[in-house]
Amino acid sequence: MLQTARTTLKRLPQRGSHDLDVIHAILDEGLLCHVGFVHEGQPYVIPTTYVRVGDHLYLHGAVASRMLTTMGRGAAVCVEVTLVDALVLGRSAMHHSMNYRSVVILGTAQDVTDVVEKRRALEALVEHVVPGRMAEVRRPSPNEIAGTRVLSLPITEASAKIRTGPPIDDEEDYALPFWAGEVPLKMVAGPPVPDPRLAPGIAAPATVTGYRRRND
Amino acid sequence: MLQTARTTLKRLPQRGSHDLDVIHAILDEGLLCHVGFVHEGQPYVIPTTYVRVGDHLYLHGAVASRMLTTMGRGAAVCVEVTLVDALVLGRSAMHHSMNYRSVVILGTAQDVTDVVEKRRALEALVEHVVPGRMAEVRRPSPNEIAGTRVLSLPITEASAKIRTGPPIDDEEDYALPFWAGEVPLKMVAGPPVPDPRLAPGIAAPATVTGYRRRND
Repeated sequence: MLQTARTTLKRLPQRGSHDLDVIHAILDEGLLCHVGFVHEGQPYVIPTTYVRVGDHLYLHGAVASRMLTTMGRGAAVCVEVTLVDALVLGRSAMHHSMNYRSVVILGTAQDVTDVVEKRRALEALVEHVVPGRMAEVRRPSPNEIAGTRVLSLPITEASAKIRTGPPIDDEEDYALPFWAGEVPLKMVAGPPVPDPRLAPGIAAPATVTGYRRRND
Repeated sequence: MLQTARTTLKRLPQRGSHDLDVIHAILDEGLLCHVGFVHEGQPYVIPTTYVRVGDHLYLHGAVASRMLTTMGRGAAVCVEVTLVDALVLGRSAMHHSMNYRSVVILGTAQDVTDVVEKRRALEALVEHVVPGRMAEVRRPSPNEIAGTRVLSLPITEASAKIRTGPPIDDEEDYALPFWAGEVPLKMVAGPPVPDPRLAPGIAAPATVTGYRRRND
């Protein structure tokens, strides 16, 4: 049921996919999602962290968050994740593009009230951002879990959109004396910056010094 | 008029800004925006390129694009741009965060029908993604301009949100023997990949070989 009329690409459908493995891989690589919801007739888009666990996406925030309150009431939402892989430079201005992988999920979210599921989601969120990190921190206390709102969104109506490869120029433009190709882009981690209050003798762990987002 | 009730941060207002220079700088550094709009009661979020020219944001796409058609009818939209600067790792799971700079713009867009303004916006878009590139490509033809829809969104109701600095742990957690600090993240360009159909003897220009997104 991933593909519905609403998640079927109307333009360039060859770039679309409803393959669950493709969708999961993009969600697992991304750091931030962009949540769209409607409040008093106005659409809002809010960036936030997330984690996929099985076939659900989990979001979290303050109990009073407007976004989570709206979502918790069963409002329709849209969650979008986009990874930029390269700039695509054609020989003409209008054939510049980007290589990217994106996912859009439509649906309604539910408040997670079960404490075990909440803890699992919150800890998975930390692991999603920094794999291995949960073994190196204080775990959430019952009070912290109670004071945090967690919502789950089923990944049931979703699509991926992917562009790869070189520019597609107009046939007559290939003879132009201009460079064309791709400029790969990658999110990379710099050297860790210790907290000014870090106690002496605590070295940055391998989860941090070896941090990389992409498996390449 | 950048600050309205709708663009005033309800949570952590100390992270908010309505300074136009701050908003412009974030918009000028970003590559993609995330456009929220409502179609038949369902919010959608679509990633797309954009460019700021003065106090307007320009978006473009196919004439038949659902997003642009909805926007062109004067529907309320939300445009969001987020730059991720660092992962913020606290000593406890719940005090993990990110350093980021984001902008949200609310408003209604207008179809740009003036050919001169359309051309300026489309060429500025290429320059926004790859500064200097317009001198190295074929410019848009009148037909290409006619076949492309351009919308402008005034930056009149907008806010920035910024987090910087180390983690903020609970006071009693500072004694824990866990590493804490920031992991800077940066979007970097890899070596350019020439189009397989690139004519012999055309070297990648400095705009491409020296490509960097951030001024640092």
